Amino acid sequence: MANLEEIIAAAAKVFRTKGYHAATVQDIADAVGILKGSLYHHFKSKEDLLYLIVKEPIARIYATMADIVASESPPAEKLRRAILAHLEAFDQHYPHLFVALRERDEMKRRFREQFKLSPTQYERCWQQIVREGIKSGDFRPDLDVHVVSYGLLGMLNWLHTWYDPRGRLSVREIADQFSALALAGLARGPRRTRPG
Amino acid sequence: MANLEEIIAAAAKVFRTKGYHAATVQDIADAVGILKGSLYHHFKSKEDLLYLIVKEPIARIYATMADIVASESPPAEKLRRAILAHLEAFDQHYPHLFVALRERDEMKRRFREQFKLSPTQYERCWQQIVREGIKSGDFRPDLDVHVVSYGLLGMLNWLHTWYDPRGRLSVREIADQFSALALAGLARGPRRTRPG
Repeated sequence: MANLEEIIAAAAKVFRTKGYHAATVQDIADAVGILKGSLYHHFKSKEDLLYLIVKEPIARIYATMADIVASESPPAEKLRRAILAHLEAFDQHYPHLFVALRERDEMKRRFREQFKLSPTQYERCWQQIVREGIKSGDFRPDLDVHVVSYGLLGMLNWLHTWYDPRGRLSVREIADQFSALALAGLARGPRRTRPG
Repeated sequence: MANLEEIIAAAAKVFRTKGYHAATVQDIADAVGILKGSLYHHFKSKEDLLYLIVKEPIARIYATMADIVASESPPAEKLRRAILAHLEAFDQHYPHLFVALRERDEMKRRFREQFKLSPTQYERCWQQIVREGIKSGDFRPDLDVHVVSYGLLGMLNWLHTWYDPRGRLSVREIADQFSALALAGLARGPRRTRPG
């Protein structure tokens, strides 16, 4: 008797390796080791299952991000925490969130309907952090808030094409590298060299 | 009478808006305005057509990148040129390269077979630029070459989720922003502030 969590974990792996479109419900039944008919007690369609896979990890990272943005930390610290939280979620929910990224188009409508925070609002959290940093004088004012935010998200989300949970570096190490790169890139340079 | 170029352009648009998996050959025939049967004079299958769409733009950006890497420019200049070339290719071949990015898994095997330069070798070009910059002392030595290279590629490739050719900023402006961010992020800081 497989429970829903086992089914979700198996389906995430199948979607990750075969791709959502190529994978069949039969593939998932085989991976779980139960009959296809029994799977339909747990979900109605492949699309339903995709939603079940991404639902919780997405809800969690959205909630974490809302907390970070609302916190009292200085902007550079918020950015560092956001980068780490985003990458740690990839790792904790591997490969669920990579399936979500790969199938974003598929999920867009459903995301909008089901979550309080939409992908657009998630992007706005990053924009807000960058904007706060510019306002506080920590980040350089010459860069476009939208381009920078999309750049950062791209840097992070691209992990779905190369990250290996058994790879040489942990997500924490990767997050440190990206934070170092992003914070130096955003730093308001001249300020540092002035006395006082 | 539609020629191959018109068919490729129409198919790229259909794949971009509908997604490769959801799009049918009938959709493409409708977009071109010819009978489905006539389309099969030009290609054998939907996969064939996907390959035709991405073939030339990919071959060109690979060739440009090989030139940039082999050139005598200093590493920072190479990086700036690489960022601009990568983004200009997105724009010149819109939406062909975005279809390629979205369907990378689909194309991987075929890429390997048909191009002299594989996606992995393209990634190595970026790694080489970063490595040269570290060696020359222009880029900071504390960051991992692979993580930085993937970070840069992610920053650029993520455009496929947000870039609008009729948008507020041109690719050149976006490239300038990303270059400024990347070069400041990679710059070997202390050097700048030392006299001489």
